[in-house]
Amino acid sequence: MTIDLYPSRVKSRPEILERQDPVVYPGCEDKGPLTREQLNFYEKNGYLFLEKFFEDEEIRHFRDEMKRIWRQCRGSDAPEVIKEPDSDEVRSVFAVHRDYEAFRKLARHDKLVAAVRQILGSDVYIHQSRINFKPGFTGKEFYWHSDFETWHVEDGMPRMRALSCSIALEPNYPYNGPLMVIPGSHKKFVSCVGEAPEDHYKYSLRKQVYGTPDDESMRRLVEESAIEMPTGGIGSMLLFDCNIMHGSNSNITPYPRSNIFLVFNSVENKLVEPFSGKKPRPEYLAHREYV
Amino acid sequence: MTIDLYPSRVKSRPEILERQDPVVYPGCEDKGPLTREQLNFYEKNGYLFLEKFFEDEEIRHFRDEMKRIWRQCRGSDAPEVIKEPDSDEVRSVFAVHRDYEAFRKLARHDKLVAAVRQILGSDVYIHQSRINFKPGFTGKEFYWHSDFETWHVEDGMPRMRALSCSIALEPNYPYNGPLMVIPGSHKKFVSCVGEAPEDHYKYSLRKQVYGTPDDESMRRLVEESAIEMPTGGIGSMLLFDCNIMHGSNSNITPYPRSNIFLVFNSVENKLVEPFSGKKPRPEYLAHREYV
Repeated sequence: MTIDLYPSRVKSRPEILERQDPVVYPGCEDKGPLTREQLNFYEKNGYLFLEKFFEDEEIRHFRDEMKRIWRQCRGSDAPEVIKEPDSDEVRSVFAVHRDYEAFRKLARHDKLVAAVRQILGSDVYIHQSRINFKPGFTGKEFYWHSDFETWHVEDGMPRMRALSCSIALEPNYPYNGPLMVIPGSHKKFVSCVGEAPEDHYKYSLRKQVYGTPDDESMRRLVEESAIEMPTGGIGSMLLFDCNIMHGSNSNITPYPRSNIFLVFNSVENKLVEPFSGKKPRPEYLAHREYV
Repeated sequence: MTIDLYPSRVKSRPEILERQDPVVYPGCEDKGPLTREQLNFYEKNGYLFLEKFFEDEEIRHFRDEMKRIWRQCRGSDAPEVIKEPDSDEVRSVFAVHRDYEAFRKLARHDKLVAAVRQILGSDVYIHQSRINFKPGFTGKEFYWHSDFETWHVEDGMPRMRALSCSIALEPNYPYNGPLMVIPGSHKKFVSCVGEAPEDHYKYSLRKQVYGTPDDESMRRLVEESAIEMPTGGIGSMLLFDCNIMHGSNSNITPYPRSNIFLVFNSVENKLVEPFSGKKPRPEYLAHREYV
């Protein structure tokens, strides 16, 4: 039985705990495209925004594929296809690196993987992949959360040694519901209140209810720091720590805010049994086999 | 029977009509605090943002009053008190210029009324007043709409000769659900589809369903122009034409986005019977008597 360093959803009162893990792991810092300043920024703030990382042609290809997948999934009732809470629009498609060649290649992209290794300090694999479509007009908010909180409790990810990579496939503006992050919040762990029901993921991907931080903890995190909205054009990329507090407002503009989302986990941080004691979520949400 | 220059909610297809009325009315342009450039900007864009218009002490007083009203109204079930769609938080309180001394005075504020007269070219009165609280964490979006569309159809406002004045009582950031406007959209009238049910206001103030523009019209308006978010500190003021297309995204940040909202109408533009043919909305939403 692995020790639970980050208990959550077990107490009746929320609590803010200190992070027990490094942010930038030693070993590979010098072997990739990220500079020392960029790694320092990431260590301090928990994220790094890169306006241009891929070739234009690569991004064009991802966009074409994204549009094709969108059309293909609109009528689908596959479990990988998640709809908006109040409409039948596609919100996300999961396991895209498993099911689509373009994203299988992206998950093994030399430059990207090298950058991720610089931060996580080891070989890595994909814990989760998805396209978020966040359609225009009807895109609802994603409430504040730490991804790690869910991955730890529901998937059994033992330590904070994972990161997300979000690549904009449409322009991100301040007004089309871009991701908001709280710099520095990755160094705190907000232990959430309440026990999630069995098969929680069936509802939480449309609208999260359990595993969300309480208002008072959120106020504290924001007061001690700020809210940042790293926005940029098509192809811009955000790398962010698995434990940074983030969320996004709704999007009533006509501009969709699609992005491709890859979660890299260290091979030294393989999943164990979920710390909730419940059965693990399906493979397409938390890969236990390297794909 | 007054001719309906702006029919809406009567056809099965949306339509974009040309505005039949001036934006800045002649007569009083030189008799107030607004400059010629400011009036020109308003004429072209349909709004004007003023970072500082009131004295600091005036704004402090409005804020104190706003907080007092918020506390007072939390448990209230008065019809003037509107709650959020998904919670019991107060979203808006109407008729504040009728019921509270501070806002009665604001509605007759010399400098403010002079500025409004410069635009509307006549004496004016309050058509509607309210405080919008837009609380942190749970503030939901206001979908795109033209105020005039509702005031015309549901209240019988015959012509476009009214404006809104929104005064920030908390800082407006790009991320706490600020008002978004489409510059120039005040010169078009989007005739909406569908007939609203009797007593529509009972639902629409929590979440608007009828009288909202269709996606295709919205796309056209935005493509021909842009989306602007005029944000500023406490006390900043936004004047905007009754027909400009505007809306706001949700607010999951801890920062409330309270503002005071006054609608001035020209005395030459008094309400007639609602163009819907239905009975008028209550006084607290659309004053027929000057208060």
